[in-house]
Amino acid sequence: MCRWVAYKGQPVFLEHYVTTADHSLIHQSLHAEKGKTVTNGDGFGIGWYGARDNPGLYREILPAWNDTNLKSLASQIQSSLFFAHVRASTGTATNRCNCHPFAYDKWLFMHNGQIGDYHRVRRGLELQLSDDYYEHRFGSTDSELLFLLAVQENLQKCPVTAMRNVLHRVREAMIDKGIRTPLRFTSCLSDGKRLCGFRCSSDHHAPSLYYRRYENGDVVLVSEPIDRQSECWIEVPQDHAVCFKENGDMVQTEMPLH
Amino acid sequence: MCRWVAYKGQPVFLEHYVTTADHSLIHQSLHAEKGKTVTNGDGFGIGWYGARDNPGLYREILPAWNDTNLKSLASQIQSSLFFAHVRASTGTATNRCNCHPFAYDKWLFMHNGQIGDYHRVRRGLELQLSDDYYEHRFGSTDSELLFLLAVQENLQKCPVTAMRNVLHRVREAMIDKGIRTPLRFTSCLSDGKRLCGFRCSSDHHAPSLYYRRYENGDVVLVSEPIDRQSECWIEVPQDHAVCFKENGDMVQTEMPLH
Amino acid sequence: MCRWVAYKGQPVFLEHYVTTADHSLIHQSLHAEKGKTVTNGDGFGIGWYGARDNPGLYREILPAWNDTNLKSLASQIQSSLFFAHVRASTGTATNRCNCHPFAYDKWLFMHNGQIGDYHRVRRGLELQLSDDYYEHRFGSTDSELLFLLAVQENLQKCPVTAMRNVLHRVREAMIDKGIRTPLRFTSCLSDGKRLCGFRCSSDHHAPSLYYRRYENGDVVLVSEPIDRQSECWIEVPQDHAVCFKENGDMVQTEMPLH
Amino acid sequence: MCRWVAYKGQPVFLEHYVTTADHSLIHQSLHAEKGKTVTNGDGFGIGWYGARDNPGLYREILPAWNDTNLKSLASQIQSSLFFAHVRASTGTATNRCNCHPFAYDKWLFMHNGQIGDYHRVRRGLELQLSDDYYEHRFGSTDSELLFLLAVQENLQKCPVTAMRNVLHRVREAMIDKGIRTPLRFTSCLSDGKRLCGFRCSSDHHAPSLYYRRYENGDVVLVSEPIDRQSECWIEVPQDHAVCFKENGDMVQTEMPLH
Repeated sequence: MCRWVAYKGQPVFLEHYVTTADHSLIHQSLHAEKGKTVTNGDGFGIGWYGARDNPGLYREILPAWNDTNLKSLASQIQSSLFFAHVRASTGTATNRCNCHPFAYDKWLFMHNGQIGDYHRVRRGLELQLSDDYYEHRFGSTDSELLFLLAVQENLQKCPVTAMRNVLHRVREAMIDKGIRTPLRFTSCLSDGKRLCGFRCSSDHHAPSLYYRRYENGDVVLVSEPIDRQSECWIEVPQDHAVCFKENGDMVQTEMPLH
Repeated sequence: MCRWVAYKGQPVFLEHYVTTADHSLIHQSLHAEKGKTVTNGDGFGIGWYGARDNPGLYREILPAWNDTNLKSLASQIQSSLFFAHVRASTGTATNRCNCHPFAYDKWLFMHNGQIGDYHRVRRGLELQLSDDYYEHRFGSTDSELLFLLAVQENLQKCPVTAMRNVLHRVREAMIDKGIRTPLRFTSCLSDGKRLCGFRCSSDHHAPSLYYRRYENGDVVLVSEPIDRQSECWIEVPQDHAVCFKENGDMVQTEMPLH
Repeated sequence: MCRWVAYKGQPVFLEHYVTTADHSLIHQSLHAEKGKTVTNGDGFGIGWYGARDNPGLYREILPAWNDTNLKSLASQIQSSLFFAHVRASTGTATNRCNCHPFAYDKWLFMHNGQIGDYHRVRRGLELQLSDDYYEHRFGSTDSELLFLLAVQENLQKCPVTAMRNVLHRVREAMIDKGIRTPLRFTSCLSDGKRLCGFRCSSDHHAPSLYYRRYENGDVVLVSEPIDRQSECWIEVPQDHAVCFKENGDMVQTEMPLH
Repeated sequence: MCRWVAYKGQPVFLEHYVTTADHSLIHQSLHAEKGKTVTNGDGFGIGWYGARDNPGLYREILPAWNDTNLKSLASQIQSSLFFAHVRASTGTATNRCNCHPFAYDKWLFMHNGQIGDYHRVRRGLELQLSDDYYEHRFGSTDSELLFLLAVQENLQKCPVTAMRNVLHRVREAMIDKGIRTPLRFTSCLSDGKRLCGFRCSSDHHAPSLYYRRYENGDVVLVSEPIDRQSECWIEVPQDHAVCFKENGDMVQTEMPLH
């Protein structure tokens, strides 16, 4: 199980959520509390929206806690919308192409979860990618594949619909192969304006997803709360998506996979 | 263009060909003389047969000249059949999965060359891999793909026939797509007993391939001579394969692609 | 706290103790049981005696569990005396020069412990190194420094005496600076024939040290037992050294630091 | 010989000088034209002033041309004063601590050149560092050592005087040891406001140093011109320093070492 943080709000230095806080992502990469995996040491990444429409990306295979570059970058870069992710591999190799977040054009995506028996449906799902999108398949993870399938599905129009369609297609492929291991999908997606979180699964056991809204409208969306004020964190229920619009409004949608 | 050395003969320390000689592969990785690419700094690898049927593999994304581990390993490991390769990428990412040699079961393979407009035929060729072999597709290079296609083609029976079939299939795929950039293929293959070298192309411009046989039967097969005694090195002609059998016999076969 | 294994006996593949067993070092690097540090993900290393008098060395900054090279090397390399170490940094940088084991000439050394307030005595202790030995100071750890001081002290004659002298000198330097944080030192040393283990401290709280002797004379010396047969593992008491001679004899020596 | 670029002027994206231009630093890292070293593949680094007084730092041991993170960072980060450096090691190890630029407090420094027979004067010069500055000695290069000595010398008051004093001290140490290999020093220094370049040596053969001033006041200071408009680049003469003040004024000072 991976760990991640996404932020949308007033511009802040990334370090506030990534490297310096008591319960920052770096701390979590050593000591995850709500997850099953003790250590998230299989690479990490940050993605942020800044002066360009397309996000910046910094990914590294070292454990986050050992990367001096990350400390410096997080203390210099300010952003009003960014992602940070520490990885615990579910089987695919530890290289930069397999580290989250993934970027395509103006989109950022990161994921915590897993396609059950992924190796048995991987090829069939890759075939659903058109040549153009397949050229952006740089790694081998199920996460990147889910993302590219969603981009191809026209994310721009409605991220929730696009993602639902993709997940239904994945489920079909799994059922075709008689796979009983579940599909579990907790993820985060943005185009630089909207911030969407998804928590759904084929077995009602998707990894946790929480958000916190501050009075000034800042939103933090996380795999697990990053501070001890547990009453401030709202858990997104199983099989739901949440979208924070550019104007700050939030929409919660049911998103069953079964 | 990459640079490589393969050795078959009395057990020697790898350092003799990899790290210490004046014209060793490390020297070549900084200053290739016959190749078009000045620097071979995009990763390297060694593969060797030792106490097991399956070869050992050590691959790293650093330039070979900067890797202290390589110096120590090459001074410790002895082998009677080994490969060493320094990479100059033709476009795919620099990560360990894309570094040569590639291993599958008891087979080792390394390559210098390129499928013209590879991105246009990649998917079609990957589809020719059965699910079992596709699971061993860890990287994204044309080299690994050619190797897995050859393994699937029953290398065991006759490496030259298997490789010829694969290359013809690749050419067909290229012609189907109207690709005019050539296919150039200079490579090296072994099962731990036989050592085979290939030099063929669709345009008579395959990268160079040389070998040297010593009086005691030792053979060195290289992308370019590794010492100044140019009269001792025999150039394998365009569109030919050479195979050194376990007993030391050598067979040279024509292998046209057109 | 780091974790480590040393082996002396019949030649075995390193994988037996490093990568494949249930309680192998790789397993421990994710889940140390007796140590205070949960994760040993700050680099690792192996050192082994083979065909040369001087040992081979392979060190990497990735977590051991993520290194495909380690898996292959451990499955190929056989040795009758080797070290393996997974590191949890006590403050110094994660780079290869700071990974254990350390080698000098025919000697190998690895360490678990720490000089209290090291930064306050580091310079003074480095000054005790002659220019010749200082040129072999590649990293910044207290471990490498302790090793070079010991090499300079004439390890060849008697490793235990040399190490005791060095540790007393370190204690003096600490006392001179008024340092109250303890010196804790559990380590392992070899010249390719003898295997010595040390467990001593200024406060009777040196990290654990165990060994197991098999009927055929094989010895395994470890920071913590690597299997569940706890009755087979003998704990080296606080403030003692053990030396396994080339002929298999074992000598245990008191080695107080106070 | 290393290669580097420093910029002071209107805020620009780093990519303009680092990754995208025909003659950008990445291009130079593969094909240096005026230098003796063909390849600058032993790590690289960027340092930039942004939202903080202290500069950001990103350093990596991969060749610059292989680092996907660098491409993304250079396309996102804007700065009105930044450094970029590609390294060709003169002997010390390739790790991040040895990559330029070096940072201390608000200061940035990068260097091209070498202390002749450095290993013979290194210890003596390190002893001139106070304990406080020695704690910031993370690597082993002569470059970092020269920088820390200069910081200790009160750079703030006058960078040229401080650097001259340090270099004279280094020369003395070299002469004391009877070293005949020259001291060559071409470097760049900034506090985020002033930009200073140095070109001096003990033998009138310091590496090249050029600058170009644009009409709008932008300044580029480089180890070699980065475009073909050679008439626009002014060579700093041997044994001189240039300082561009915050208001844009430039002062050139003689700085002989003999």
